[in-house]
Amino acid sequence: VKRDGGKRIGVVIAAGGSGRRIGGVPKQFRDVGGRPLLAWSCARFSAHDGVGPIVVVLPDDLVADPPPWLGAWDVRVVAGGATRRDSVRAGLAGLDETIDSVMIHDAARPFVSEDLLDRMVASVGGGPVVPVVPLADTIKRMRSRRGEDATLVEGTVDREQLRGAQTPQGFPFGLICELHEQAARDGILASDDAMLCERAGVPVRGIPGERWAWKVTQPEDLALAKWLVASGRVPWPGDPDR
Amino acid sequence: VKRDGGKRIGVVIAAGGSGRRIGGVPKQFRDVGGRPLLAWSCARFSAHDGVGPIVVVLPDDLVADPPPWLGAWDVRVVAGGATRRDSVRAGLAGLDETIDSVMIHDAARPFVSEDLLDRMVASVGGGPVVPVVPLADTIKRMRSRRGEDATLVEGTVDREQLRGAQTPQGFPFGLICELHEQAARDGILASDDAMLCERAGVPVRGIPGERWAWKVTQPEDLALAKWLVASGRVPWPGDPDR
Repeated sequence: VKRDGGKRIGVVIAAGGSGRRIGGVPKQFRDVGGRPLLAWSCARFSAHDGVGPIVVVLPDDLVADPPPWLGAWDVRVVAGGATRRDSVRAGLAGLDETIDSVMIHDAARPFVSEDLLDRMVASVGGGPVVPVVPLADTIKRMRSRRGEDATLVEGTVDREQLRGAQTPQGFPFGLICELHEQAARDGILASDDAMLCERAGVPVRGIPGERWAWKVTQPEDLALAKWLVASGRVPWPGDPDR
Repeated sequence: VKRDGGKRIGVVIAAGGSGRRIGGVPKQFRDVGGRPLLAWSCARFSAHDGVGPIVVVLPDDLVADPPPWLGAWDVRVVAGGATRRDSVRAGLAGLDETIDSVMIHDAARPFVSEDLLDRMVASVGGGPVVPVVPLADTIKRMRSRRGEDATLVEGTVDREQLRGAQTPQGFPFGLICELHEQAARDGILASDDAMLCERAGVPVRGIPGERWAWKVTQPEDLALAKWLVASGRVPWPGDPDR
């Protein structure tokens, strides 16, 4: 797969978690509109002719016998690690070294739009880039008094400059591989990959994210995801009417 | 209305905004499941026997001829001001001075549950209290370089202690009235009412908020609100099967 200019943009889809917060089957395999949650990300990236190859990071114990529906796409499956960092690192190692850039994506965000991928593809050549959204709530910093049950508010954080970071996040391939090696050596557990760039002083740009690229974390999010599919708000990638 | 111990808990429902972000009719009057958005808050607080009286703050130009459906509840209507602060202050002035506590609520959060109101009623006697929820996204602090279009990430904010604040927020009545007077004198524009307590050094407690007490800000939120009603996830307050 080649995009304009012949640059190759690989993809790592992180689906190595056990998803215990929702309960039952790990959340990346939960049904959303007749398809596993993870299938939506696989279909979305596969349907975009500007990206590829694609590596899917699965829980360790599933790699020997991956779910058969993954065979619908040209994806490589690799085994995840104990932490998100280890899983992403394993995914990066599963891409060949001729890749120019890489998008790292959390399978818990099933509904990235074609438009967002277009904008990521157009931006990632310029260095690290992340989709960001404003925060609707007033943001409080909490503290807890020792020996007290109640959680006290320490103060309000000015949210003018704050944004919620989504995925996919895009990076020059060599850079993010090196930063992940460093993070593993230094024992750094980042909550996203852009943090590793920030830590190294490498500029990261924000581009507008999307309401429905939100992260599925609770049972209510699964119900919401099913509704988005049922209502036609998020067509199956690759369908002619998308 | 009396709750345990004979304490009276007034309510201010802030619906004085022009709701321009969604476009068209101000958002508090947009249809959600056959009822205006604001009607959901009126019904919820009216159905709870632990709270009242209730003051609804409307846009200035609507107060002379308020929407007839507001007549379904025993609410007092007052005119809002140019800012949320002025509107809340007008709402507080519309409550009689024998109130012990007050809950201040944004009409843009239509689906506060009976359970959350129960917990607020049980807590507000102990001083200021706000419902808070964890943040699912990694939180970035942005900066903009002068003369550049791209928005740069300054860094990642540790979200362990951060929470999104919802409404209703509960306060001792005399305290919040005094703090609002001060804020008006000092020209302070707070993004919520708890901030005025924080500024004055008065402790504010957090209690667990709710997924569906989120704030309607975008067109997608209105669609989501309609689905929550249609799917039976948020029964009309007062219905026997609630």
